[in-house]
Amino acid sequence: MLSITILGTGNLATHLFQAFNNAKNIEIQQVYGRNKKALKAFEAHGTTTSFSLKDLLPSDIYVLSISDDSISEVSKSLSKREGLIVHTSGAVSLTAIKGDRKGVFYPLQTFTKGKKVDFTEIPICVEAENKNDLQLLQSLGRSISQIVCEISTEQRQKLHLSAVLVNNFPNHLFHLAQSICDENNIPFSLLKPLIFETVNKIRHLSPEEAQTGPAKRDDIMTMQRHMDQLQDPLQKKIYQLLSESIKAHYEKEL
Amino acid sequence: MLSITILGTGNLATHLFQAFNNAKNIEIQQVYGRNKKALKAFEAHGTTTSFSLKDLLPSDIYVLSISDDSISEVSKSLSKREGLIVHTSGAVSLTAIKGDRKGVFYPLQTFTKGKKVDFTEIPICVEAENKNDLQLLQSLGRSISQIVCEISTEQRQKLHLSAVLVNNFPNHLFHLAQSICDENNIPFSLLKPLIFETVNKIRHLSPEEAQTGPAKRDDIMTMQRHMDQLQDPLQKKIYQLLSESIKAHYEKEL
Repeated sequence: MLSITILGTGNLATHLFQAFNNAKNIEIQQVYGRNKKALKAFEAHGTTTSFSLKDLLPSDIYVLSISDDSISEVSKSLSKREGLIVHTSGAVSLTAIKGDRKGVFYPLQTFTKGKKVDFTEIPICVEAENKNDLQLLQSLGRSISQIVCEISTEQRQKLHLSAVLVNNFPNHLFHLAQSICDENNIPFSLLKPLIFETVNKIRHLSPEEAQTGPAKRDDIMTMQRHMDQLQDPLQKKIYQLLSESIKAHYEKEL
Repeated sequence: MLSITILGTGNLATHLFQAFNNAKNIEIQQVYGRNKKALKAFEAHGTTTSFSLKDLLPSDIYVLSISDDSISEVSKSLSKREGLIVHTSGAVSLTAIKGDRKGVFYPLQTFTKGKKVDFTEIPICVEAENKNDLQLLQSLGRSISQIVCEISTEQRQKLHLSAVLVNNFPNHLFHLAQSICDENNIPFSLLKPLIFETVNKIRHLSPEEAQTGPAKRDDIMTMQRHMDQLQDPLQKKIYQLLSESIKAHYEKEL
């Protein structure tokens, strides 16, 4: 049985709590948070909580699911303890943690408040300074997910950047398209089958093979017509640069 | 029974052929193409083909699934006929068709050669100059899809632009992320659950509600770290502009 303490009461902390709470061989020792009201939700599950870092019970692993900026400071308060201290951030280096035993436990997914997720399919990227701690994190990862992967700080930071490219930016493009639909009395739902098929394709094809559209064909007239339809200069520029980037790639291939 | 003639032997023509071939109440009269070899695939299904526009049999509807640039010219060759002439393009105006009876039959989806699609869930955007022709196209649409929508040329052109925003551009961003993964020995498959969840979210949330990430939070340090990781000036610029666009939107909300 592994005992863990979750530090943080936010979105990711809540999702991790739910996953660990259902996991075999994991005992949630305590949840720490500065917000007493937020702690109530965890107490409702019968879990001991604390709003003082000094009063935390001993634990095998301390899981810091807090803002990137707080990781160093909070880990410092735990540095005299025996347990392994891990953060859950995609962007922060392993060495940001102060303490003898440090690690990273990064679930590569986007979490929405109130929307349940199936952790078994979420890749858990783990990192530690020594083999024993790495094995411990691999066990912890396997308790909630089928995909556990050793990833260095540098690789993790590339993944974090990639996550912005594949999640934040496409979602914003969906948002821009929705605005265009709304302005023209077109139901946005008409675009949803296309959006679903866009990602469905990459189950079987690489994104490189799946690429279509005027930029790939270097269809200048269509691109110009699209640019003319965009009023916002920033959106025009986004259209132009993404088209240029697609074009540049497929020209290389010729 | 509606008789239709498909003009074109490309990707969309092939997918439409398969859908109409399985549809009740639709008889594929003929398939026209300039490429005799490409026509063979249609003949294999027992369909009459032709490579001469003059020799086409009479038909209720002529479906032009050809390049945007050829629509006017090919429709001119059919303009003396009684049937309804429709094109299948998102970008081309209804009036590009020469002839007394013109229409548009635009399936809003991305089609991959060799990958079967379920037409029942593909929105068919139809347009015509009079009520009778519109009803004819609605019947034709309903023979293969559950979603048939009357969409004007102007709206369709906005949808075509939107399709680039929600399909071509996100796919290219997946491609950029895959390049980053490849360069850093990270399996791209680690990002796939995130990609699937990105679109899964918009089943229940609007893209506006689903937005997350450093640009929304105006997390300047993370954005700068990401920019530093990108080597290609064009990619840096894309990162910067999309972040700026996200930021601008959520600032407005404050």
